[in-house]
Amino acid sequence: MVQDEKFRVGILGASGYTGADLVRLLVAHPNVDIALMTAERKAGLPIASVFPHLHSLDLPNLISIEEVEWPAVELDVVFCALPHATSQQVIKGLMHATNHSLLDELIMETPADLAASVPGDVRVIDLSADFRLRDVETYAEWYGRSHTAADLQNRAVYGLTEWNREAVRGAHLVACPGCYPTAALLALLPLLKAGTILGDDIIIDAKSGVSGAGRSLKEANLFVEVSEAMHPYGLGSHRHMPEIEQELSLVAGHNVTISFTPHLVPMNRGELETIYVKLAEGQDAASLKAVLEKAYANEPFVSVLPGDTAPATRMVRGSNHCVLNVFKDRQAGRAIVVAAIDNLVKGSSGQAVQNMNVMLGLEETTGLMQAPLFP
Amino acid sequence: MVQDEKFRVGILGASGYTGADLVRLLVAHPNVDIALMTAERKAGLPIASVFPHLHSLDLPNLISIEEVEWPAVELDVVFCALPHATSQQVIKGLMHATNHSLLDELIMETPADLAASVPGDVRVIDLSADFRLRDVETYAEWYGRSHTAADLQNRAVYGLTEWNREAVRGAHLVACPGCYPTAALLALLPLLKAGTILGDDIIIDAKSGVSGAGRSLKEANLFVEVSEAMHPYGLGSHRHMPEIEQELSLVAGHNVTISFTPHLVPMNRGELETIYVKLAEGQDAASLKAVLEKAYANEPFVSVLPGDTAPATRMVRGSNHCVLNVFKDRQAGRAIVVAAIDNLVKGSSGQAVQNMNVMLGLEETTGLMQAPLFP
Amino acid sequence: MVQDEKFRVGILGASGYTGADLVRLLVAHPNVDIALMTAERKAGLPIASVFPHLHSLDLPNLISIEEVEWPAVELDVVFCALPHATSQQVIKGLMHATNHSLLDELIMETPADLAASVPGDVRVIDLSADFRLRDVETYAEWYGRSHTAADLQNRAVYGLTEWNREAVRGAHLVACPGCYPTAALLALLPLLKAGTILGDDIIIDAKSGVSGAGRSLKEANLFVEVSEAMHPYGLGSHRHMPEIEQELSLVAGHNVTISFTPHLVPMNRGELETIYVKLAEGQDAASLKAVLEKAYANEPFVSVLPGDTAPATRMVRGSNHCVLNVFKDRQAGRAIVVAAIDNLVKGSSGQAVQNMNVMLGLEETTGLMQAPLFP
Amino acid sequence: MVQDEKFRVGILGASGYTGADLVRLLVAHPNVDIALMTAERKAGLPIASVFPHLHSLDLPNLISIEEVEWPAVELDVVFCALPHATSQQVIKGLMHATNHSLLDELIMETPADLAASVPGDVRVIDLSADFRLRDVETYAEWYGRSHTAADLQNRAVYGLTEWNREAVRGAHLVACPGCYPTAALLALLPLLKAGTILGDDIIIDAKSGVSGAGRSLKEANLFVEVSEAMHPYGLGSHRHMPEIEQELSLVAGHNVTISFTPHLVPMNRGELETIYVKLAEGQDAASLKAVLEKAYANEPFVSVLPGDTAPATRMVRGSNHCVLNVFKDRQAGRAIVVAAIDNLVKGSSGQAVQNMNVMLGLEETTGLMQAPLFP
Repeated sequence: MVQDEKFRVGILGASGYTGADLVRLLVAHPNVDIALMTAERKAGLPIASVFPHLHSLDLPNLISIEEVEWPAVELDVVFCALPHATSQQVIKGLMHATNHSLLDELIMETPADLAASVPGDVRVIDLSADFRLRDVETYAEWYGRSHTAADLQNRAVYGLTEWNREAVRGAHLVACPGCYPTAALLALLPLLKAGTILGDDIIIDAKSGVSGAGRSLKEANLFVEVSEAMHPYGLGSHRHMPEIEQELSLVAGHNVTISFTPHLVPMNRGELETIYVKLAEGQDAASLKAVLEKAYANEPFVSVLPGDTAPATRMVRGSNHCVLNVFKDRQAGRAIVVAAIDNLVKGSSGQAVQNMNVMLGLEETTGLMQAPLFP
Repeated sequence: MVQDEKFRVGILGASGYTGADLVRLLVAHPNVDIALMTAERKAGLPIASVFPHLHSLDLPNLISIEEVEWPAVELDVVFCALPHATSQQVIKGLMHATNHSLLDELIMETPADLAASVPGDVRVIDLSADFRLRDVETYAEWYGRSHTAADLQNRAVYGLTEWNREAVRGAHLVACPGCYPTAALLALLPLLKAGTILGDDIIIDAKSGVSGAGRSLKEANLFVEVSEAMHPYGLGSHRHMPEIEQELSLVAGHNVTISFTPHLVPMNRGELETIYVKLAEGQDAASLKAVLEKAYANEPFVSVLPGDTAPATRMVRGSNHCVLNVFKDRQAGRAIVVAAIDNLVKGSSGQAVQNMNVMLGLEETTGLMQAPLFP
Repeated sequence: MVQDEKFRVGILGASGYTGADLVRLLVAHPNVDIALMTAERKAGLPIASVFPHLHSLDLPNLISIEEVEWPAVELDVVFCALPHATSQQVIKGLMHATNHSLLDELIMETPADLAASVPGDVRVIDLSADFRLRDVETYAEWYGRSHTAADLQNRAVYGLTEWNREAVRGAHLVACPGCYPTAALLALLPLLKAGTILGDDIIIDAKSGVSGAGRSLKEANLFVEVSEAMHPYGLGSHRHMPEIEQELSLVAGHNVTISFTPHLVPMNRGELETIYVKLAEGQDAASLKAVLEKAYANEPFVSVLPGDTAPATRMVRGSNHCVLNVFKDRQAGRAIVVAAIDNLVKGSSGQAVQNMNVMLGLEETTGLMQAPLFP
Repeated sequence: MVQDEKFRVGILGASGYTGADLVRLLVAHPNVDIALMTAERKAGLPIASVFPHLHSLDLPNLISIEEVEWPAVELDVVFCALPHATSQQVIKGLMHATNHSLLDELIMETPADLAASVPGDVRVIDLSADFRLRDVETYAEWYGRSHTAADLQNRAVYGLTEWNREAVRGAHLVACPGCYPTAALLALLPLLKAGTILGDDIIIDAKSGVSGAGRSLKEANLFVEVSEAMHPYGLGSHRHMPEIEQELSLVAGHNVTISFTPHLVPMNRGELETIYVKLAEGQDAASLKAVLEKAYANEPFVSVLPGDTAPATRMVRGSNHCVLNVFKDRQAGRAIVVAAIDNLVKGSSGQAVQNMNVMLGLEETTGLMQAPLFP
């Protein structure tokens, strides 16, 4: 443990909502100094020019990525909150710039070996979708383009901390899961692994607050379009599908295909997934719940709610928690698993900080124990 | 057609949200005079005392139900927007009070015969849950009490207008469907009837605005509890389940059991249902869509959206429309049907007025062709 | 009265929120056919491509303004819902194109004479800010550019219907008031005219829903920026200020300068103005209220609420009503006047239709008597 | 400084929104243990039964106030978040129960003396309105009842920390200001004290989120009544008026009477005040701003925004900050001061913790430096 040490971190793409939440969490983190923040169109300005709510913080001005002097800035950790496609190019570049051993060496024995072999190298935590899919063909199929850092892609560690803690610890490039996959996988992985649910016929009905759509200017995200309304989107085509399937398949030991339908809900933050599963022989809602309780008994950020309390997004607003519960389905042989997270925290920036803590050997909960903001 | 005729209508329970929306629709209806409105705790006061937004309308003062002089008031139609359990007692009473032939006669051949035999009798349109379940035991099981007007229960016509138009025409007691069943049945009945989907394994993930919870004082409905948040409720136990199953079973010809999970969404009005179905042999999303298009080709209030436009609640806000569409599911053998309505209009008061139009021999769309209110 | 006549109307700029609300009102209007709708970027497409909620209506496809064949289309009325600056150019053009007598003749005796002298000419109802300020220098000062149709500007009639009914009747070009001025002037004009308040030291604290900002893509109007938040904007510089001052000065008989501060509120529709006024000698809140009650006793769209009921935007949602009330101020010599309207209806499209009704000799309330939508 | 010391605190009335926010702040406070929480109707249950979002925290169960064994529980600080009227009785009782020297002694020289003379006594921080008004007659006039702890009333310190820091330091009973007074006084006190504005004709137009209304069951606070709507309330009669006047008068040196009109806004948290002031001779907006900048130059929780950035509630959501700015008014001799706070934090629980820090000799910002939650 390195309780008093301070690490220098940079945030690439600090002017989006993910960037804002990274700043919120990192300024309160006792072992971190924010040494660098980039934002292309706002380079040269203070962060308050894009986020007035951060006006009272003592932070460096925004710069352009091209202005970064990589070795000189001596970062320990880089958070990359850039748009996908951009992210892979920037990360490739910065690893070259920092003469990163990941690119040089050809053989990695274990993550621990790697970590040991490259002391001092910058750790990269990517919040984009660019390094989540290990298979370059799957990537190309869903994103309509070839990956430009394919050599890095299959070496990135998938940063669902609770499931990949050891790999994250030694990783130099962590791909943080998407918000929808985070909730879905936390709910489903223990059940699949324990063999209590079937791998086929998993139906995920997901609902998200609007911050998940980012800060880009689209008519669909205008207040008046969204407020007092809701609708599904990306039916059958949302890019979080292959990511969920990749991780479920890994645990199931065979290819898993899911139904996944996201909906836009008039709230800033919050994500709820109602997951309809088929029970394995002899299982019921109670036995599934017992599996989840056991899996997360010692996890600080994942709770299985008591009794029939339904997970609600207000229980996790602004916090890194995930709340779960399992319910009896009226249809025999089925059960309903419900998960709620804050899409910007456990679904994005919070999990990124959680991964950073693991990578740096800090207490995993450092800087992440804020109680939820309710009301 | 009786274009210029004026009918006298009464609204029992005018101080709830359903009552408010009935008033909104009926004051604009060219063939109706609102002759009576009741509200127990506000008896003696003008409607503006409970709904200031109705202050500029010329309407009778609220009275208590006990004050109603049934024969003297000479109503043609009574809308009953009372809480369930209360509703059945009041309707039984008023039918006695008006010496309603429904209670006297023993044999009904057809609804048309009935209509012919009791000219002048008051028509009752019930918006509560009391007369929706035809089976008294199912009623007792789900509502935890015996029905006190069991003789009326199995003679009430289930007022899903598009499907029961002829029966509604001759009915003296119409039970308007619940809001969730309305959307679910409009989406599923044509598909089941055409044999394009399987009757088992239907999963309905439903999302509703808060007005569906009524105006009663519950902590769970306070602004601060609901705003900027969402959650499921009534998991496995919502009373709209047996109602949906009853009607699906009727068309399927066998007992249908469904999964149904409602969610509370921070909006005043609107209801969205995302329905996961299993395809019959040889079917796909396109063939299901063709069935819906054919079924509703001539229906003024039900539309199948073109292309892959997703139904959204903002498309039907304040209107009596239902919008539908069908989507390919990533899982083979499945499709996703989506339906959106305004829970207070097509899901309640609008459908009640639609039924009234049919019962009175008026053009079915009279007073119901408002364009949706967007923004 | 011409109850059965049908007039042909066109909507220029049908793809904005104002356009959407014009369509909503005009499709329900018994004396109108929508013969033409323009939208530059969506020319050639059905209106449902920009407003899916209008999908079930039978309307002409969108076209570009340049495609309009002005004389051939034979419009009786044109609603111009274009951005300011564009509006003046288009209106100038269309009046030339239709060989409009307004441009040719040099002498107008009275509006009635004018109306008589140009039968058949298209009537133009402008919803932009372009023809609201009669003084070209004031226009240039506040809009930072010279007016390009200055000859038309001072002949436009200011369409605050309740105050300019006779002028509107004969007008060929009506400039509909801004939303903020509509509420402010309905509240203040009777009081100033009756001499019950002082012309100086009028403070208008205004709050508006987000639809007032239009459908253009600005970060400030994204859901996440606005929801669960509020703030003032345009402090000391909002362009509705000179418009309010112009009309107040006219009635006061001297130059009136006001304080006016608008605020953005997280709701789609609705506008509330809390107006702090100084009482003239011998006046109090009750005497002011009496003046308003008398002024609007016969107005169908303006109500003074009874007792101390506070005007609320929910009382007028979706309707053409304005609700007013006056309250005692704790400071001696002051009173508080409160006004609420729906910014898109009485504040924009509804008032435009009201003006159309007057211009065409129809009953003023035709098509505008919808009850408010609450909830 | 007592950086490592732990103090035992109790929260009376932990089941309201103020209580929830106290818990949120105090569990993250390094020098505090929550030793006791009361809630009458939920006595015996865990806090998660009233606030599921707090389920993962390790906290004592709720008990009834009558169950508290005052001396035995050995509290250093009691936060009293009870309804007014109840608060005064409970505080009187607990001071007797703890044999509090405040009640025994007759002469207090200075707060500092007092603090010195009663080491070990419990410090009471009241968040109700009960001890804010020093004059018992004013209290009786506005609250319609005699104060039952009048002897304590005039000895309570008004806990606007930035203005009463020294008195708070020695206080045994602090009355935390109301949310509206907090924002108003932070904006106005420096200006009045510096003589830059006139004491008469101050108009405060205030807007608040719904959490300010508390968690009690009132129809007016139901989601459907509030959402997508806004309105003023308590016109001319809100009880925060005399509180604001009391403090302004103290600084002005003469009786100040204000106009104050609060409005309910559809958001959970946040409070904005737009204050219209008259300038003293020779003053303008810039000179007022300079006064505020100087007054708060070293205050950690109050900021004057740069340039013409308008204060917005989203800048302070969930944080203890107050943001201020001053704007030129179009009317000569006037200016507009705008203040934004989070009504539950700086307007209530946060300021209470700030006062606790001062009373206990801790760094004033301890546990209160969370960045605002945006989005």
